[in-house]
Amino acid sequence: MTGQERSEEKSECVSLSPMREAVPAPPECERVCVFGTGDLGRSLGLRLLQAGYGVVFGSRRPHSSSSSLIPHGAQVLGHAAAAQSAHLIFIAVQREHYDFLVPLANQLKGKVLVDLSNNLRKNQYPEANAEYLQSLVPGAEVVKGFNTLSAWSLQNGPSDANRQVYICGESVEAKQAVMAVATKLGFSALDRGFLSVARELEDFPLQLFPQWRLPLYIATGLSAAFFFYLLIRDIIYAYVTQGEDISFRIMVSLANKVCPIVSLIMLSLCYLPGVLASFLQLYRGTKYRRFPDWLDRWMLCRKQLGLLALGFAFLHVLYTLIIPIRYYVRFKATERTVSVIRENRTTEFDTTAAWRGDSYLSLGILGFSLYVLLGITSLPSVSNVLSWREFSFIQSKLGHLTLLLCTAHTYLYGWNKFLSSSTYKWYTPPGYMLCLVIPSVVLLLKLLLITPCVDRTITRIRQGWERGADQRNPKDSQPLIT
Amino acid sequence: MTGQERSEEKSECVSLSPMREAVPAPPECERVCVFGTGDLGRSLGLRLLQAGYGVVFGSRRPHSSSSSLIPHGAQVLGHAAAAQSAHLIFIAVQREHYDFLVPLANQLKGKVLVDLSNNLRKNQYPEANAEYLQSLVPGAEVVKGFNTLSAWSLQNGPSDANRQVYICGESVEAKQAVMAVATKLGFSALDRGFLSVARELEDFPLQLFPQWRLPLYIATGLSAAFFFYLLIRDIIYAYVTQGEDISFRIMVSLANKVCPIVSLIMLSLCYLPGVLASFLQLYRGTKYRRFPDWLDRWMLCRKQLGLLALGFAFLHVLYTLIIPIRYYVRFKATERTVSVIRENRTTEFDTTAAWRGDSYLSLGILGFSLYVLLGITSLPSVSNVLSWREFSFIQSKLGHLTLLLCTAHTYLYGWNKFLSSSTYKWYTPPGYMLCLVIPSVVLLLKLLLITPCVDRTITRIRQGWERGADQRNPKDSQPLIT
Amino acid sequence: MTGQERSEEKSECVSLSPMREAVPAPPECERVCVFGTGDLGRSLGLRLLQAGYGVVFGSRRPHSSSSSLIPHGAQVLGHAAAAQSAHLIFIAVQREHYDFLVPLANQLKGKVLVDLSNNLRKNQYPEANAEYLQSLVPGAEVVKGFNTLSAWSLQNGPSDANRQVYICGESVEAKQAVMAVATKLGFSALDRGFLSVARELEDFPLQLFPQWRLPLYIATGLSAAFFFYLLIRDIIYAYVTQGEDISFRIMVSLANKVCPIVSLIMLSLCYLPGVLASFLQLYRGTKYRRFPDWLDRWMLCRKQLGLLALGFAFLHVLYTLIIPIRYYVRFKATERTVSVIRENRTTEFDTTAAWRGDSYLSLGILGFSLYVLLGITSLPSVSNVLSWREFSFIQSKLGHLTLLLCTAHTYLYGWNKFLSSSTYKWYTPPGYMLCLVIPSVVLLLKLLLITPCVDRTITRIRQGWERGADQRNPKDSQPLIT
Repeated sequence: MTGQERSEEKSECVSLSPMREAVPAPPECERVCVFGTGDLGRSLGLRLLQAGYGVVFGSRRPHSSSSSLIPHGAQVLGHAAAAQSAHLIFIAVQREHYDFLVPLANQLKGKVLVDLSNNLRKNQYPEANAEYLQSLVPGAEVVKGFNTLSAWSLQNGPSDANRQVYICGESVEAKQAVMAVATKLGFSALDRGFLSVARELEDFPLQLFPQWRLPLYIATGLSAAFFFYLLIRDIIYAYVTQGEDISFRIMVSLANKVCPIVSLIMLSLCYLPGVLASFLQLYRGTKYRRFPDWLDRWMLCRKQLGLLALGFAFLHVLYTLIIPIRYYVRFKATERTVSVIRENRTTEFDTTAAWRGDSYLSLGILGFSLYVLLGITSLPSVSNVLSWREFSFIQSKLGHLTLLLCTAHTYLYGWNKFLSSSTYKWYTPPGYMLCLVIPSVVLLLKLLLITPCVDRTITRIRQGWERGADQRNPKDSQPLIT
Repeated sequence: MTGQERSEEKSECVSLSPMREAVPAPPECERVCVFGTGDLGRSLGLRLLQAGYGVVFGSRRPHSSSSSLIPHGAQVLGHAAAAQSAHLIFIAVQREHYDFLVPLANQLKGKVLVDLSNNLRKNQYPEANAEYLQSLVPGAEVVKGFNTLSAWSLQNGPSDANRQVYICGESVEAKQAVMAVATKLGFSALDRGFLSVARELEDFPLQLFPQWRLPLYIATGLSAAFFFYLLIRDIIYAYVTQGEDISFRIMVSLANKVCPIVSLIMLSLCYLPGVLASFLQLYRGTKYRRFPDWLDRWMLCRKQLGLLALGFAFLHVLYTLIIPIRYYVRFKATERTVSVIRENRTTEFDTTAAWRGDSYLSLGILGFSLYVLLGITSLPSVSNVLSWREFSFIQSKLGHLTLLLCTAHTYLYGWNKFLSSSTYKWYTPPGYMLCLVIPSVVLLLKLLLITPCVDRTITRIRQGWERGADQRNPKDSQPLIT
Repeated sequence: MTGQERSEEKSECVSLSPMREAVPAPPECERVCVFGTGDLGRSLGLRLLQAGYGVVFGSRRPHSSSSSLIPHGAQVLGHAAAAQSAHLIFIAVQREHYDFLVPLANQLKGKVLVDLSNNLRKNQYPEANAEYLQSLVPGAEVVKGFNTLSAWSLQNGPSDANRQVYICGESVEAKQAVMAVATKLGFSALDRGFLSVARELEDFPLQLFPQWRLPLYIATGLSAAFFFYLLIRDIIYAYVTQGEDISFRIMVSLANKVCPIVSLIMLSLCYLPGVLASFLQLYRGTKYRRFPDWLDRWMLCRKQLGLLALGFAFLHVLYTLIIPIRYYVRFKATERTVSVIRENRTTEFDTTAAWRGDSYLSLGILGFSLYVLLGITSLPSVSNVLSWREFSFIQSKLGHLTLLLCTAHTYLYGWNKFLSSSTYKWYTPPGYMLCLVIPSVVLLLKLLLITPCVDRTITRIRQGWERGADQRNPKDSQPLIT
């Protein structure tokens, strides 16, 4: 680029920032280039102009009619001329058209190419788009970035869900140049490492709650299974044996049985893998062997399991609290009182029932409050300010306490019905008994793990001690120098 | 600054950091200058000293009595001498006194001047204070920053609401120097771009929920309107026609009618602009024409509308749940039972009423739970970890589902009362009927938009396709290279 | 390190990153050194390898058997050779073994040493480990960092609670080198300043809610005190005077008295120090004198006091909402109705009671909603996006309004029982009266502070004005230049 060209440009790019006319002109108006005048390119160009950059579009037909859509203030040049006019070039072109860059190799030498592209589905191509671009133009510094933004964000600036921009690439300087642009556009940029991360970044916009999928399947499966189980046991049983139509109970009573059951099971599923992992380490006598894949995957979705469990617990609380408002409940209360009067019965206050009922409610309230506390500390901004010790205190200690309270709450709900045969309609146990199995097992195993002798061994293993390795490392608890 | 001066200073500034005496002395004690010994200057100076900087105050009368307030360990010099002793100079002086800097132009040449000033109201001056400062001392590098902090934060260090520091200026090096200081004081600094952003930064501390204002006005207006409407229809009507004083119902019953009405209307107002925008794009056949201003403003406050709607829904839930505790309700229940006995009536269980009531409650619970989910994903830290696809899935898909559930909840509340003439006291419809208008319209329009043929056109328009532009871009869905 | 060595290494380190084979090889494979082959060192080394670094372990016996545990792909050398092979050296060795570094002073000259160590308890050693390390190897650049991570995070990469890495050290370049590594490992690094901060960083992993401790003690103390007070007054009194066993009320009724009492007291304790501080400033006539230590400590835990108060309020709400579900309450309701019928009484509707009851409930609901709003704005991610003016508006204005609503709620609960002597069993006042003392005092003092004349003085003091200093600063409200 000649000096003359630059000075010409300079006067132009000052004129296109009317909002800054009152301001002393900035020392220099940095210029960037955008290849591609499609929607994405134009959106990005407009935004760059607004941020005070000079923008040059590279186009195959710089004088074609579509340039009427080019944001006012930007220049349109041929690809080669455009590439020469700036150090930073955004490639807003779809991957299948990348080959037009090959003949430009000379002009692109040493330039920073920002690959913005996304694919329509995962694994569409053998290598990441950015890596393909790098292989086409080996002389340029390819940086992957901005692809996680929606076109809307590129056009209108960062919004709540679109402030973060991920960058990767081989050259530190190239990445810094791109991060500076991102910051000036109002985004906060994060360097994710080498170009090999590009594939991950290209997959990011395609993802739809990948970590939530397994927990959601589990929740849906459990809900459906218990819904039909209880439908048969409660509603259809009543219809078949007594000819009574109580199908209206589906809406609240049945929902209020399914929700706590699924919640308790999922909460216990959230703590089961940790317990299993401990026993596996104990059995293997080392922490250096990888867990089986299924256990790894399970452990990685514990947070999601717990949050879904909290959601079901929340529904259970709401369904429980509206009980006294229900027409059915109010009708029954009146009927009971009326029958007491008409049959001239006396009612006796049962202190045990009062104790049991109040304890049951109280345990539920405390359990739910701890549940909510666990949920709050799972918020990214809260868990970020916690030290690791604090986080594990809450999620492990308080988590198991929550499980204990909720399990006790369910046992108290059952109370003496466990032994009465009338509970087992059609020889099936009620739902709350089924849902107690896993939590009880988790709590028992956990109890085993915190007995002093087991706990001591686990702690040593976690500190790097290995069974059978004592000869090699005499100072087994401090094997830090060898 | 001569070598001798520096060495003298050095010994001094080591002595003023007693907490680091046990530590090997840092390679050099960086020194910064603060102009202005007022409250702000002294607070900042103290904080800088605590962070390990050497601090030199620039003062008109360096030996005046007020320097007794100067933090212990700092030096006070005349302006010129102070300016020479450091590269970075904080200007803790009010804008109207900036002209004292003009004669110092020589000493300030090449220095970084940090403009900390704020104004008392917006648009107090024609240009930003920092831009004015730059025009007074063109040879210096002016950086705007730290002004968004309270004096309390500057004195006591960052607290929760005061960790972020915004910086702008023309020179990258100057900004980096200021950001380094900010980081060392414990703040996290963000480069917001050129000096033209200074006005925005200066307006920031003056703002009081600018984006919440319109939604709050709407909420207040709607609440007041429906409150008086229902006051007349329920309380005054009862008084006029039956001479009954039921004014006590204002506190809970009336509140519990106003809250859900306002909540549902605001939730639908939150989704109406998106639907309108789609129809506008459909009508215009392009997405490249700007929306009218009112629509833009409306779309920008959707989040606030939704959160206020959630607030009213929360109140509605609480008001509903305490119903059975109310004296009035308990009194009525007793009275009803008593009358059943005394009149020797039999009550018949109405399965339809049970179905309706339970469905109504269940829909409300599910709607509210989704409402809460939308609220949680609006938290900045949560929406930041979502990909754009995930965020729009929740806010658009789940949002419309929430609206559908809440609208159905309200229709079930009305049930068969829509057709009974006794519902229309004084020929006015009840509140819940009025509030159903907008949600129903929004849902109908949305239904129209998701019919396959309309949806296809909208999708193409959003991908950059334009009606009547097919000749120019033959590959209409991929107009990325031209 | 000779050129030959480097080229040999290069070929090796390319081979150990199989995931990047399809990618054009990075310009150079940066190499880091890890001293110590214990658990921490191996975990870190594995992670570094995965991030694309070449890793060299420094070991006393490089060929010993324990090197079988060394992650595949890393090299093991003697300490001296290892030190020479990289610029950045992680010291994954316990502090008591640091002295092996002294003889390596020559090889370590100019190298960046990253001190990862933690202690078992606070103040275990006279100086921070990193400072001790610096004193042992004065020629190296010591950087403290990564110690706040769990070994789990170092091994498995950042998780929710472990994304932030804190760094401190004297040399800016050394810190930048360490931060670059941290970023590449997926962490976000924050420069906390000079090496003198090291002690703070070393204490961080040991902390367990230090700021929550005092508020938790207060909450526990208050809960216990009121629990026993109410136990005696309600349960034991009934047993002693009427021989009635109502001990089942402990689970819900008593809990539902203790929770609101503790909540209201703690909320008022959250606003009391601010009021006291204002009066102290008013009395002293200046804001430049430090508050007494106890007041400072108190003010720093206001947020925690408020959040605990919110927790108790949440419990109170849940305990209140389940009231109508309780067996005892349902029993009593039936009994009441039955007695009305049997004694052939007529019940009269009491409009005053309805007003009082509904107002009491409504104030509680509004108070709790504001409470929740305060809680939400305390979330780090929410308070970060608020300007200081907005944050203080919510926390101060809305906070005092919350206190006012909750206090009024409690007064309405008491209603006319304040004057009835039967309220004072065994001459003791009921719990809700006791808990009204502090909130009433806080509200009265606050009322005093916002009277115009007091408010004006306070505002001037906060702007830096000092009583008796008018002569020195004639422009008392703008003492910015002297």
